[in-house]
Amino acid sequence: MRKVAIIGLGHVGATVAYTLFTHGIADTLLLLDKNQAKVEAEYNDLRDTLARNDYHVNVLMQDWDKLKEMDVVVTAFGDIAATVKTGDRFGEFEINAKNAKEVGQRIKDTGFNGILINISNPCDAISTILQETSGLSKKHVFGTGTFLDTARMQRIVGEKLNEDPRNVEGFVLGEHGASQFTAWSTVRVNGRSADELFNKDEESELSAQPNKNSMKVAFGKGYTSYAIATCGVRLVQAVFSDARLFAPTSVYVDEVGTYIGYPAIIGKDGVEEVVKLNLTDEEDQKLQDSANIIKKHIAQLN
Amino acid sequence: MRKVAIIGLGHVGATVAYTLFTHGIADTLLLLDKNQAKVEAEYNDLRDTLARNDYHVNVLMQDWDKLKEMDVVVTAFGDIAATVKTGDRFGEFEINAKNAKEVGQRIKDTGFNGILINISNPCDAISTILQETSGLSKKHVFGTGTFLDTARMQRIVGEKLNEDPRNVEGFVLGEHGASQFTAWSTVRVNGRSADELFNKDEESELSAQPNKNSMKVAFGKGYTSYAIATCGVRLVQAVFSDARLFAPTSVYVDEVGTYIGYPAIIGKDGVEEVVKLNLTDEEDQKLQDSANIIKKHIAQLN
Amino acid sequence: MRKVAIIGLGHVGATVAYTLFTHGIADTLLLLDKNQAKVEAEYNDLRDTLARNDYHVNVLMQDWDKLKEMDVVVTAFGDIAATVKTGDRFGEFEINAKNAKEVGQRIKDTGFNGILINISNPCDAISTILQETSGLSKKHVFGTGTFLDTARMQRIVGEKLNEDPRNVEGFVLGEHGASQFTAWSTVRVNGRSADELFNKDEESELSAQPNKNSMKVAFGKGYTSYAIATCGVRLVQAVFSDARLFAPTSVYVDEVGTYIGYPAIIGKDGVEEVVKLNLTDEEDQKLQDSANIIKKHIAQLN
Amino acid sequence: MRKVAIIGLGHVGATVAYTLFTHGIADTLLLLDKNQAKVEAEYNDLRDTLARNDYHVNVLMQDWDKLKEMDVVVTAFGDIAATVKTGDRFGEFEINAKNAKEVGQRIKDTGFNGILINISNPCDAISTILQETSGLSKKHVFGTGTFLDTARMQRIVGEKLNEDPRNVEGFVLGEHGASQFTAWSTVRVNGRSADELFNKDEESELSAQPNKNSMKVAFGKGYTSYAIATCGVRLVQAVFSDARLFAPTSVYVDEVGTYIGYPAIIGKDGVEEVVKLNLTDEEDQKLQDSANIIKKHIAQLN
Repeated sequence: MRKVAIIGLGHVGATVAYTLFTHGIADTLLLLDKNQAKVEAEYNDLRDTLARNDYHVNVLMQDWDKLKEMDVVVTAFGDIAATVKTGDRFGEFEINAKNAKEVGQRIKDTGFNGILINISNPCDAISTILQETSGLSKKHVFGTGTFLDTARMQRIVGEKLNEDPRNVEGFVLGEHGASQFTAWSTVRVNGRSADELFNKDEESELSAQPNKNSMKVAFGKGYTSYAIATCGVRLVQAVFSDARLFAPTSVYVDEVGTYIGYPAIIGKDGVEEVVKLNLTDEEDQKLQDSANIIKKHIAQLN
Repeated sequence: MRKVAIIGLGHVGATVAYTLFTHGIADTLLLLDKNQAKVEAEYNDLRDTLARNDYHVNVLMQDWDKLKEMDVVVTAFGDIAATVKTGDRFGEFEINAKNAKEVGQRIKDTGFNGILINISNPCDAISTILQETSGLSKKHVFGTGTFLDTARMQRIVGEKLNEDPRNVEGFVLGEHGASQFTAWSTVRVNGRSADELFNKDEESELSAQPNKNSMKVAFGKGYTSYAIATCGVRLVQAVFSDARLFAPTSVYVDEVGTYIGYPAIIGKDGVEEVVKLNLTDEEDQKLQDSANIIKKHIAQLN
Repeated sequence: MRKVAIIGLGHVGATVAYTLFTHGIADTLLLLDKNQAKVEAEYNDLRDTLARNDYHVNVLMQDWDKLKEMDVVVTAFGDIAATVKTGDRFGEFEINAKNAKEVGQRIKDTGFNGILINISNPCDAISTILQETSGLSKKHVFGTGTFLDTARMQRIVGEKLNEDPRNVEGFVLGEHGASQFTAWSTVRVNGRSADELFNKDEESELSAQPNKNSMKVAFGKGYTSYAIATCGVRLVQAVFSDARLFAPTSVYVDEVGTYIGYPAIIGKDGVEEVVKLNLTDEEDQKLQDSANIIKKHIAQLN
Repeated sequence: MRKVAIIGLGHVGATVAYTLFTHGIADTLLLLDKNQAKVEAEYNDLRDTLARNDYHVNVLMQDWDKLKEMDVVVTAFGDIAATVKTGDRFGEFEINAKNAKEVGQRIKDTGFNGILINISNPCDAISTILQETSGLSKKHVFGTGTFLDTARMQRIVGEKLNEDPRNVEGFVLGEHGASQFTAWSTVRVNGRSADELFNKDEESELSAQPNKNSMKVAFGKGYTSYAIATCGVRLVQAVFSDARLFAPTSVYVDEVGTYIGYPAIIGKDGVEEVVKLNLTDEEDQKLQDSANIIKKHIAQLN
């Protein structure tokens, strides 16, 4: 049986739940949130769906004692309003850091011993706190990080070339936030490198577009949900099926001393391996700079 | 190719879009809404999902000229706040009736000639207006009606007996609203009739519970979305695959002279057949009463 | 993680494997067969599929030591040629009984402690032997039985009425073989009973048709595979998701003292409950007669 | 609606049908085969599956007049025994060439005007004949070609590195047969080129392994089915969803003057574009040599 807990039933957490539910990816879903009315709403909406669903899924709520039996926990708490207001994911750092410490401690107290996939923002910093407080190893805690930003880059490059975004390889690296960057040396479409496809101006424009689109989402509906939830679900699947999926996620990278968006192999033990890329010097510097920003924020908190 | 337009990208319309998208049920999705910021948000969020999706789906927006090429249109416009505030789906009738007339006329102007599945509330009355204004036949226009309420009844009966709700047969009939009723003479679980399973008090309690739960959803998150969207999606699938699915939906029932929640066979031409049930006299009366309420509201509008 | 072993990689076992694989229902598939060439063929064909599959699935073969780690084992060994030649599933009883004893013992030796779903024919008798030899409880061993025959009945009734077979309720009961019968008192379509829909001649004709069709399958391609494999897969899903699915399967029915096709609730512990039906006296007699045939064959074997 | 015809209901054609059916990818499946008993077997086995399927799919058989209404036709006729006996797909060329001319003519006679995806072997030569005789353009006819061999290469490279095969990029090019070759200059795993990962000896070994595995499949069960059928299904999906999928398929390449395994963009019009690769001189020569072999066989036939 596949058992998943979701902590934080805002728009993202709820969409993760709904996606796991309608695709039959989880057998048991445990919904946990401080806001009782919210969690009851999602619990009842999902249970009302069951008779129309292709799959049977057992939905539970608010039973922290059951957390220990879960295989995977997805953390998706947060205060998106703070991010939308400031336009910066660190806008919700203070409140989420506090949440993360509480959640991490609570996870620890239950004796949960599975894989934790963090979506809460600022993703790299919150993943750090959750790892430190949950008692789980760095292997067993990782975040969605730039897995989402990479999907957005793939879309934009695909649209530029009139291609399926799945034809686009390559990574957005660094902070899941303002200091992230597209590592153009890693981008390839249909076997052609970015160098062959785009000039520097085009690359700049393509680098800027994903954020513009995500702002349209955030301002248009007050939050983003579908793309980020789907990224989370893919990672849940990779853990259950021990897929050894190669994906840029927020993982602890020794070289830069922090959780940060960087490619890793995701399998049944979480982060099976961090895969070293051959970046250009400029990209290496950008990664270091981005790491410094994450670390500075974490340091300021303490 | 399967082409679906969605008019109204509130929580329900957007969830219909997301579900069709992540399950690869539609090949093309056309998103239409008066609120440009909202539709751009959903458009961008779905397109950002594409690189992580199992299926390729072409998402378009705001191009009414393309409506003519669509096979199915789902209408999901509305002002849920008005319903939540009054606790009655007729709370949003005045505004939605106005919307429905505009939308119906606009659909007619494009020359759309497919199937229209209405989710907008009050579902039976709005389905009536959409049929009258869109130029489509009664066969080609139907609403989700009590397909949702029936799912909720199946859930509650299933939970009572510790069964998969899919083991529960039977129907909630009438208005998708306060005057609806569970037709207990149609309810069977594992081959046993409701008479064998429940006494009258239990039936009363079971009849009341679904609405209590849906209120928990509506008040807890400000709207309901997952169960209703999934009902809409099942009906879209039934049309595309010509499934001849037996489902209680809002269809025009000659005997009572209005659109109302009643079982029909749903296939490629929409309502392939309205299936006459053998109800008890009391149930027949309740259906008639419910029809009168719907008709009175429509008459008051004009 | 969901872990499934399949013992017997003939057409049916291989199709079960392929279906679990392409739908991402299992995370690990362990393939076991005496015929090394056959199991290597299926193992390699599935592994060659992986790069084109929506899901990652780990396929293993011939490692009996790993059986203990599996959650579900599906048995699908057999000599279909013997059945096709004689036109009677007891045609392969002698050889399959021998296989079943070996397989049951081997399962016992590994310490496997999950759920065993048997497809091997004659299904009721082989389920009996597997239960007796595997060391598993009657709850934990059941067979596909008349779950397939019921699907065939639903199809034929649906075709007769131009309906989706999923609109058809009711059961074929008894031996998964010649003495099975459609329990017409349980059949309902769109809320109407068989009595209202068919006269006795029509019922006789509808009862005979499924077997004619299945013979067309068996003689046309030398075996049947798709319908039976899909039945097996649904039962696997019901176990993993603890669906409490109401399904006619080969379960041990105390009243008749044998494994036989009869409705049960299938969940995480296998046969959660055998559900007593209110059959007509004639149907009760047919069930008893069918049980006697199964028991006679088993007795003759010993 | 999505309508697919399958011509040739051997193991591969039947598996394509079953996969489309169980995943709800097609709404209508039209099964066509000279062998009436075989097509009736598959038709009945699929229809018997319907009550247990998540999707409704309409299965038809032997109605050539309906071919005109189909969107996609998959050709999967053949005499696999001839290939298995000789170990060379040209072993069945003579008989399949004759079949292809008949089938092509028959398709033309119906006025079919959709997309033809050919699986029949030798794939490149049969695709050529089908294009010439069906009256369809080169854009509208293509074959699975080395899409399968590429999947096998991805698997082998993935296994070597303990990676998900979906992490492996690159192509097997040329004839879907003995003269095919892995274009190592196109192979990349997790951003690293084949040069960085393997020495020449390893590449040779990795190049040879896929064929060894496929022989194990062919000899072990007398045919191969799952991987090839899944490749066909992916291409069907790419056409319906206008995915603009980048995939090595058997397409007409002007530079070498024949159908041959080479990457193309697959969308709603079939071969939307043949994508020119930057191969090494040695690889260019291998492609030319492989093309010459295909052309020689076709010339010998005439």
